[in-house]
Amino acid sequence: MAVKIGLVGCGTVGMGLIELLDRKKDFLREKYDFDFSLVFVTDLIKGTVFSKDGLDTGELKETAARGGLSESGYAGTGSCGLAELLSETRPDIVCEAAPTDYRTGEPGMTILSSALKAGASAVTSSKGAVGLNMAGLKKLARENGVHLRFESSVLSGTPLINLVRGPLAGCSLSKAEGIVNGTTNYILTRMESGLSYSEALGEAQRLGYAETDPAGDVEGFDAAVKVCIMSAEFFGSALSIDEVRRAGITGVTEADVANAARSGRRIKLIAGVSRAGESVSGYVEPRAVDLANPLASISGAANAVTLTTDNLGEITVSGPGAGKKETAQGILSDMLEIVSLRSAGK
Amino acid sequence: MAVKIGLVGCGTVGMGLIELLDRKKDFLREKYDFDFSLVFVTDLIKGTVFSKDGLDTGELKETAARGGLSESGYAGTGSCGLAELLSETRPDIVCEAAPTDYRTGEPGMTILSSALKAGASAVTSSKGAVGLNMAGLKKLARENGVHLRFESSVLSGTPLINLVRGPLAGCSLSKAEGIVNGTTNYILTRMESGLSYSEALGEAQRLGYAETDPAGDVEGFDAAVKVCIMSAEFFGSALSIDEVRRAGITGVTEADVANAARSGRRIKLIAGVSRAGESVSGYVEPRAVDLANPLASISGAANAVTLTTDNLGEITVSGPGAGKKETAQGILSDMLEIVSLRSAGK
Repeated sequence: MAVKIGLVGCGTVGMGLIELLDRKKDFLREKYDFDFSLVFVTDLIKGTVFSKDGLDTGELKETAARGGLSESGYAGTGSCGLAELLSETRPDIVCEAAPTDYRTGEPGMTILSSALKAGASAVTSSKGAVGLNMAGLKKLARENGVHLRFESSVLSGTPLINLVRGPLAGCSLSKAEGIVNGTTNYILTRMESGLSYSEALGEAQRLGYAETDPAGDVEGFDAAVKVCIMSAEFFGSALSIDEVRRAGITGVTEADVANAARSGRRIKLIAGVSRAGESVSGYVEPRAVDLANPLASISGAANAVTLTTDNLGEITVSGPGAGKKETAQGILSDMLEIVSLRSAGK
Repeated sequence: MAVKIGLVGCGTVGMGLIELLDRKKDFLREKYDFDFSLVFVTDLIKGTVFSKDGLDTGELKETAARGGLSESGYAGTGSCGLAELLSETRPDIVCEAAPTDYRTGEPGMTILSSALKAGASAVTSSKGAVGLNMAGLKKLARENGVHLRFESSVLSGTPLINLVRGPLAGCSLSKAEGIVNGTTNYILTRMESGLSYSEALGEAQRLGYAETDPAGDVEGFDAAVKVCIMSAEFFGSALSIDEVRRAGITGVTEADVANAARSGRRIKLIAGVSRAGESVSGYVEPRAVDLANPLASISGAANAVTLTTDNLGEITVSGPGAGKKETAQGILSDMLEIVSLRSAGK
């Protein structure tokens, strides 16, 4: 089935998606009947390029890697806005991979709303908008007969959102809990080798895992937004980020890590949401986890979530929590699901 | 959507399915528009009961628990054969949960073939038929415009088959490897507490984990059939059970387990299938696994599989490997997927 894709945001994730689509074009057509054309790419810094007939992903990845999209040979380049791009190219799916603001949900909120209102399904890898108002966006999707998907917003492409939606259909969840921030897990893992908190943080910054201002990770904000997403998706319960009980890892000392090790445990930043009756509560906190717990073996920048279900007890999924092609894979998985629903007239 | 279900096999798994359907009837209708009627249940020992208008799952679980299905008050009881049941009740889906013979694939092979030929989709929790001739059964399903599903045949309802099919769509696999037999994992876990192999086996037998004749588990046959299923499903490559390189745990000694522990490792029975170029190879073997490996933390009767993929690197999923409601959940998940495809005319 032919599917027209628009891409907003051409940083690491957007580039990853262009590369992934280019690399697996034939595979996707043969295995999933997914015959895409990329009709626009727009980025705040790199500029805009569009073509109703579809852009060449091979050429595009070269051009975008050099810097400016408008250097490409396509007629449709320049600085036209999203509304114009949507009406000009009429995409079936808009992928949003822009940086996110947890408090306002922007620019994702505006991008996703615009896409849905224009009758395009929307896929996002950013957390702000779905963390803030998932119900509103889902309603907008329903009203316009299209779909909203966001697998990559938690654990990048490691299946979690779509795992619960699909293969775990029939189960009721009572808890989702795990390690959802790779930066803090990397720091805690390195502290087990004897590094101090500030040494481990410095190393994470040098390796590009942690931002220059690491507060979003180490104070647990990033994990808390993911808790909001899990709460809204798994329990239909909208928690604001301030309603998530939150403690980061800034207070964790070498002595804490060493003490935990002596009692056969590891300190992990555990993020979770649980339901008891009608009450749903979310939390982010450092916790000493027993080695028998599957979460204890999650090292470095890896992530994992344990789902507590009625039919299966505990199911744990682990894998990468971030990364260029890893996040792009989540977006691709969402698009493949949307196309299978669309081909079915659902 | 209304869906008529037939059930062949009313042992532990079949009973689990009846109980699960009964318990979650309203939830399934509301959340998934899955409005089922169970039109027949047939079991070699318990007998047969059928009704075109649907059986009462609440009444049925009581009757079946007491022993004979034919004690129920339904008019349609007795010993009519499968062909008659299929033509009389015209089910949309036939669930097969009978004991399995790895060498012949029977009785699953005949039951699944009959269902598919009669135009019903088929779901199986047994390993024999799909381990032996998955391609033939899939072809039969395609020819009859229906579906074949078998999530529960590996890791019971813990998502593996449907995880790769759905949320991991877009990924190519190069390896699937893990702990797929709970009995042997229980024995190896207990040997870590100092029990000898025969003491641990005896305990597993007393707890009902291991059969009186434990060869199928401890010599790795059960794991090898699961390797055949993974090979056929993930790589489209039919391996016979004799083509799977196989070593069981009967030769694992207390000293082996203690030595592994001293070097920070655990002995696990590892089953896997990997592809290199066009060549696919399957294996089952005890292996000393490093504690940093997610498979090392899988204790007791739990199972786990690590999938090596191009887009995500390694993804590990862990959960129950067996159990009454756990296996029934896999069958339910398969049925929900079939109904969503059917409602879409696919």
